[in-house]
Amino acid sequence: MSIVLVRDSQVRAMESTVTNAEKYFGHFCSLLAAYTRKTARLRDKADQLVKQLVDFANTENPEMRATLRNFAEELARVQDYRQAQVERLETKVVTPLKFYGPQIKQTRAEIKKCKHIRSNEIKQLEKLDKLRQKSPSDRQMISQAETGVQKASADASRTTHQLEETVDAFQTQKLKDLQKIFLDFVTIEMVFHAKAVEVYSSAFQTLENYDLEGDLQDFRAKMRGVYGQKDARPRRDTAPSAAVPWSRPSQSAQSTTRSQRKEEEASEDDFPEEELEEEDLGGWDRDSINGMRTSKSRK
Amino acid sequence: MSIVLVRDSQVRAMESTVTNAEKYFGHFCSLLAAYTRKTARLRDKADQLVKQLVDFANTENPEMRATLRNFAEELARVQDYRQAQVERLETKVVTPLKFYGPQIKQTRAEIKKCKHIRSNEIKQLEKLDKLRQKSPSDRQMISQAETGVQKASADASRTTHQLEETVDAFQTQKLKDLQKIFLDFVTIEMVFHAKAVEVYSSAFQTLENYDLEGDLQDFRAKMRGVYGQKDARPRRDTAPSAAVPWSRPSQSAQSTTRSQRKEEEASEDDFPEEELEEEDLGGWDRDSINGMRTSKSRK
Repeated sequence: MSIVLVRDSQVRAMESTVTNAEKYFGHFCSLLAAYTRKTARLRDKADQLVKQLVDFANTENPEMRATLRNFAEELARVQDYRQAQVERLETKVVTPLKFYGPQIKQTRAEIKKCKHIRSNEIKQLEKLDKLRQKSPSDRQMISQAETGVQKASADASRTTHQLEETVDAFQTQKLKDLQKIFLDFVTIEMVFHAKAVEVYSSAFQTLENYDLEGDLQDFRAKMRGVYGQKDARPRRDTAPSAAVPWSRPSQSAQSTTRSQRKEEEASEDDFPEEELEEEDLGGWDRDSINGMRTSKSRK
Repeated sequence: MSIVLVRDSQVRAMESTVTNAEKYFGHFCSLLAAYTRKTARLRDKADQLVKQLVDFANTENPEMRATLRNFAEELARVQDYRQAQVERLETKVVTPLKFYGPQIKQTRAEIKKCKHIRSNEIKQLEKLDKLRQKSPSDRQMISQAETGVQKASADASRTTHQLEETVDAFQTQKLKDLQKIFLDFVTIEMVFHAKAVEVYSSAFQTLENYDLEGDLQDFRAKMRGVYGQKDARPRRDTAPSAAVPWSRPSQSAQSTTRSQRKEEEASEDDFPEEELEEEDLGGWDRDSINGMRTSKSRK
């Protein structure tokens, strides 16, 4: 009967592998979905800040106006990268984690089937045991029971073997996917942070080059009512006027994510979104997408 | 009377300078406070993910266990930097913006005083005009009214001049502060993103070095119930065991921010926090603080 015990502990080990995967992949999925949503909200706040910066720039004198517009544009660019980050996290991290639901369900069903067949084997063994105690001389009955046990044992052995293969495949896929999903997560984050460093470095220069003295001259002239010389003082920098930085080219792709925001705000955090966008990164931000693909090819 | 009109447009220009500052600094303050809070929530979600990764690591075989623990530790380190970012945003960005409330109130009071004195000047002028029309021969009355106008004009001129100086000082400070606050914002962000790139690069290596085949050998051995050879296969990497990465050294400094979270979650986003922590970055993350100070000295 020791083979039965071995099988028992085998099935329990497999069950716990699948149960743990179910539990933790569920946690990872909802936490990473929440992380993605919080990132989207950070983007929304920064977008609002960009808008206010542009509005405020329009009330300021040329020097500060140019500085604030350029700064707003750079801040908007960071949000473009954050938007790409959000879309990639949804596609490459949250969605694959969601796929574990059905996969786990199927493996769980196979474990159940195996347990059922295994319990039949035990039943047959118990039946044979009783027979041997009660009617040790009834050779025919015992022989019949022995055949039953052999058949049940063969069934159990075969099913356990099948299950072993299923769980082996499940585990292999799980480990590969874990590595891949978290590598994707890290890559997406890394690309975003690297781009942010780049853009903020340029924003630092923009702000540092601001000419306070020139701006104050303009202000004083204006206050004394002798404004009109304003164009006499040459400005170092002119803001690229029209194209408001916070109105992005592919508004359509964005609006989905953005309009979802309100609902997400209401139903807090802990459940993954039901709808995910297709991997449609639209026309904007090609540069960074390519950047990501390059760094991905390392794997 | 043209001097009166000039003064009028001067006062209106000053008033609009102060009104705009009030309006937009208010917006900046609440948006940046919200931005900071959203960053804190992102940190909280990532902290939860770290905890789940560590828990899950404990259910896995040695290879994946080590990988996940190291990855969790790196993810926790990013959150340490994010926490530093949150505290610095509060201290260097949100708090200075809050100081504009009282300052603007005072300047606004001076404008009101100036307008009152200016309307007295107009009253005296009107009085003189009427006298000249009604009793052009009453030299004594006209002379008295002329003195009144002269006095009122002198008052208005002096007050307007004073106001001009006040608003000039206000504007100078405002422009300087705008530059400084946004430079601080950019520096804080830049330091955080740069550190994140660094840590994620290391996390990428951690995940990429994961030995899937070795792990599967362990798993298969375990499943076949012949587990026990597990230590026979040498492992490339051992996780620094005990010190759970997500329990940070200076828990006390942190706990304030973290316990505020729940309340903030309830009262959504649009008002700056009433209490701000002192600039106490505690003992952790010295490295990054120094990094920030270095880059600041550039200004």
